[in-house]
Amino acid sequence: MDNLQNFHRTNYCGDLRLSDVGKTVSLCGWVQRQRDLGGLIFVDLRDRTGLVQLSFDDSTDKAIFEKAASLRAEFVVAATGLVRERESKTNKIATGDIEVYVTQLRLLAKSETPPFEIVEHSKANDMLRLKYRYLDLRRPEMQAAIATRHKITKICRDYFDEQGFLEIETPVLTKSTPEGARDYLVPSRVHPGKFYALPQSPQQYKQLLMLSGFDRYFQIARCFRDEDLRADRQPEFTQIDLEMSFVNEDDIMSIQEGFLKRVFKEVLDVDVQTPFQRMPWQEAMDRFGSDKPDLRFGFELTDISDIVKDCGFGVFSGPVAGGGSVRLINVNGHAADFPRKKIDKLVDFVKTYKAKGLAWTRMVDGQVTSSYAKFLTEEENKAILDRAGARDGDLILIVGDEKNDVVWAALGALRCEVARQLNILDPKDFRFLWVTQFPMFEWSEEEGRYQAMHHPFTAPMVEDEDKILTDKAHCRARAYDIVLNGTELGGGSIRINTPEMQEKAFQALGISEEDIQERFGHLVNAFKFGAPPHGGLAYGLDRLCMLMAGAPSIRDVIAFPKVQNASDLMMACPDFVDDKQLDDLSIAVTRREQDEPEA
Amino acid sequence: MDNLQNFHRTNYCGDLRLSDVGKTVSLCGWVQRQRDLGGLIFVDLRDRTGLVQLSFDDSTDKAIFEKAASLRAEFVVAATGLVRERESKTNKIATGDIEVYVTQLRLLAKSETPPFEIVEHSKANDMLRLKYRYLDLRRPEMQAAIATRHKITKICRDYFDEQGFLEIETPVLTKSTPEGARDYLVPSRVHPGKFYALPQSPQQYKQLLMLSGFDRYFQIARCFRDEDLRADRQPEFTQIDLEMSFVNEDDIMSIQEGFLKRVFKEVLDVDVQTPFQRMPWQEAMDRFGSDKPDLRFGFELTDISDIVKDCGFGVFSGPVAGGGSVRLINVNGHAADFPRKKIDKLVDFVKTYKAKGLAWTRMVDGQVTSSYAKFLTEEENKAILDRAGARDGDLILIVGDEKNDVVWAALGALRCEVARQLNILDPKDFRFLWVTQFPMFEWSEEEGRYQAMHHPFTAPMVEDEDKILTDKAHCRARAYDIVLNGTELGGGSIRINTPEMQEKAFQALGISEEDIQERFGHLVNAFKFGAPPHGGLAYGLDRLCMLMAGAPSIRDVIAFPKVQNASDLMMACPDFVDDKQLDDLSIAVTRREQDEPEA
Repeated sequence: MDNLQNFHRTNYCGDLRLSDVGKTVSLCGWVQRQRDLGGLIFVDLRDRTGLVQLSFDDSTDKAIFEKAASLRAEFVVAATGLVRERESKTNKIATGDIEVYVTQLRLLAKSETPPFEIVEHSKANDMLRLKYRYLDLRRPEMQAAIATRHKITKICRDYFDEQGFLEIETPVLTKSTPEGARDYLVPSRVHPGKFYALPQSPQQYKQLLMLSGFDRYFQIARCFRDEDLRADRQPEFTQIDLEMSFVNEDDIMSIQEGFLKRVFKEVLDVDVQTPFQRMPWQEAMDRFGSDKPDLRFGFELTDISDIVKDCGFGVFSGPVAGGGSVRLINVNGHAADFPRKKIDKLVDFVKTYKAKGLAWTRMVDGQVTSSYAKFLTEEENKAILDRAGARDGDLILIVGDEKNDVVWAALGALRCEVARQLNILDPKDFRFLWVTQFPMFEWSEEEGRYQAMHHPFTAPMVEDEDKILTDKAHCRARAYDIVLNGTELGGGSIRINTPEMQEKAFQALGISEEDIQERFGHLVNAFKFGAPPHGGLAYGLDRLCMLMAGAPSIRDVIAFPKVQNASDLMMACPDFVDDKQLDDLSIAVTRREQDEPEA
Repeated sequence: MDNLQNFHRTNYCGDLRLSDVGKTVSLCGWVQRQRDLGGLIFVDLRDRTGLVQLSFDDSTDKAIFEKAASLRAEFVVAATGLVRERESKTNKIATGDIEVYVTQLRLLAKSETPPFEIVEHSKANDMLRLKYRYLDLRRPEMQAAIATRHKITKICRDYFDEQGFLEIETPVLTKSTPEGARDYLVPSRVHPGKFYALPQSPQQYKQLLMLSGFDRYFQIARCFRDEDLRADRQPEFTQIDLEMSFVNEDDIMSIQEGFLKRVFKEVLDVDVQTPFQRMPWQEAMDRFGSDKPDLRFGFELTDISDIVKDCGFGVFSGPVAGGGSVRLINVNGHAADFPRKKIDKLVDFVKTYKAKGLAWTRMVDGQVTSSYAKFLTEEENKAILDRAGARDGDLILIVGDEKNDVVWAALGALRCEVARQLNILDPKDFRFLWVTQFPMFEWSEEEGRYQAMHHPFTAPMVEDEDKILTDKAHCRARAYDIVLNGTELGGGSIRINTPEMQEKAFQALGISEEDIQERFGHLVNAFKFGAPPHGGLAYGLDRLCMLMAGAPSIRDVIAFPKVQNASDLMMACPDFVDDKQLDDLSIAVTRREQDEPEA
């Protein structure tokens, strides 16, 4: 194999243009393909910038020509040659006007035939691509996604630095706080029987940093949650995490708007209008059935509980009597796009959100068909359609349930599903929204008690401070989420900064004094020494990158992701370890997964 | 307690100057101290920028005056007032020319009396400061150290971005590779009996990224080693980690020199001369007894083995006969600074480096005293002093041992110790050095075999490739360390990039085919698909920050460090966890540390 002694790359492959004609250049990269046409050889050479054609002909030095003839896909070479105009130009690649006539060629490494071809839009199956992730990452769209992620994080770091934020690293080996998702634990060799936990977020550390007077903190932090992985979750993920002292919501929001405006401009050349729209949580639920509404289209929710509460149709009156509601969306002007069969599928769709069914009225060319009209009086039917503003061409979809949450979830998802089917979602239309005034508490059926909707350090709204113990259901928090096109990009809150209010909040959550000390002792004790008013926010960086790179999954913006069962197919981990290692850590395995063939 | 409604900070405390006189400003911060002089109250207010004096007098609104009277150290306040020239100026603080006459005052949080005073050069003991780390971090020198760290990392990110490096995150939950230091393990809930490991470095991932064609990678990466902590080690530490493709040593070194030049200029306003001096490992050992020599002073080593090899003094001739050597340093002109008692302490000093003793000759005012002269002939004595270039006023210190390593270690440490005692080490004199051409292998007495000095992926020097199997003792590696004033800032190497050479390297290390697949399978297999020539480097960020911040310990540049037994005194972790958590993870504890009172 040749080496790189006395070789110096002068250019990247994808950068060469007509203006370089006549220059001698030295390039390095991988053979994308080699075409041997007898006395003529063409090699497409690839590096992270793109492709360029190398050419060899009968006036090429014989040894070099033979070396060129031996090249196969993914061989690694370094070549020196003359840039010349191409006879048959192509606009398929950016360097299509030129080629490099090679005068020196080094073969740096050979390659076996890869398990799949390194091309754009690979059709290789996901598991194979993840096992050979290092090859999959050679594909242009993966290179682009990772480069975009780099750009986003760089802008993020620049922006927050300019705004006076200090990047401060917080520990990864920290303390387990049994709240929320499961912690990953790390046994300690030095302290037998004791464990560190990997952080679910740097929440407590960043609050302590405010107490320490750092004023503005930020970090791009790795976080860990041992959850059952849903579609787009990773056991380790990355958060843009920040916190500010002596601020209110407006200060925080305007800083964030500046960040998003800048990152969207510099990465996508999109002009984002600021300030963003703000909407109280209650309004978001009532109008969109979601705390992360997609504002690119209408089909808003309308409450018809008052109309149907006394009707003779139990499917409608029952939910209202049971304390819930009946609501509808009007898919204006699109009834014709939803024939009966498609509506049946929508019925199935809402059932996945625990709705018992979906009632509908379809109005096409003056023909009105309805799944429920016959059970109601003429007045009731008319009142519903009037309330919906229904006209010919509209499709009315109705869900009722004894739980408002079910109605919201079903209709909130349904309006997005309908929009998706209608293909009216413009991926280049970016509608940002702050959702504010979240409930402070939410009732947990499972636990039979109120839980913190955000986390137990979130401050109540000043006007609701009195309700924290007396009217939990209506106590609102100084919490906010930043939403883009139906996706939550991030969220945060103003925090409690006095021991008195913190004690009330714990009391409201029914956490005992002992539990408080056990779980949050360091923070609660710290707050006795003068905590400034403070608040912050965290973005899911993986998701932000996915949206901005236009990638279908967060896996595509993570260099080495894990699959749904939390394993890394490339590294083949987690894996069994030596008994000696376990013994050093004073632990033993009590159950052992059967060895199974890799997927 | 007051809140911040309708309050907006206009300035930081430490920024106010005479030019601000006449302005109305709004400030926030902590009370450093409050002095109540009857009708006059002064409050020093502190934020991250420094201190400013707030003043209140008999024309102050009565309610405000009373509130000011109630203030105690570390209370949190927001104040609005008029900047005015101070009657009695002070240059003890940057804002000493002015004060703020307060017209509005909000008390935002009270504070208990802190366990130690928040002042510069605190005398509180380390354990107390670490337990109340959030208070210790309020001290100005801690604030400055963390700010310096931010600045260093920001410059690092800017520089490598400009040089075309992509920041790419690599996993924290990865695979255990039983080599080198102990791994921290993380049990898997989904895969009972299997474990992730926390990475000791992203070494294999960054090499895979080169194989993927990213060309230039960098990351500020958290790394983990479950070692017994020596003085300045942390179980988790941070590395500036980078890797480049299609490069040789010169390319990598020149990029790094650019980085260090920039960071020293921007952070310390020090002009670093580039290119840095380079020195082969063998020369560093022979001249300085160290692979990280401090070049700020002389006292270089001189080999006198040939002179003493046949002398009648066994302490000298024995080591040479045993395959070792006898070497000296000449502490030129400083004999008078080392009276007999001090020399006795130096004898004890070298014994901590396993030297059996220290022979010496002291020449002061024409008087020559010596610990060994009487055992040698006149010619031998003269030859030694001639070789040492000894003159009146010099102190000659000699160590011999059958192991060269012992001689180097003892004299290498001794020359630094002597320089330290002489107080000739200028902390503002920055002498950078590349140490190159490290041995590829080092003999492990413990294991009875050769081990990789750097790691098994390091390439041999081209001219030594043939020696890799046949002459391991003299095979040199393409490895390099960057050294500053006796401290290793970082190190790296050009890596092996072909399966053939990698196989040879494993063979030289005596690693079986099975072990290779088990430990390094993913990397070895990946390299079959065309790896570019590549190399890289990693810096210890904590140490770099410590040196640049002039901090005595890496603890001082880490916001939340751990102590020597790897525990976090503030968080009180590691800690016991619920049995339920362990059961979920299919592990059990086999030994349990006795609960003990916190240090």
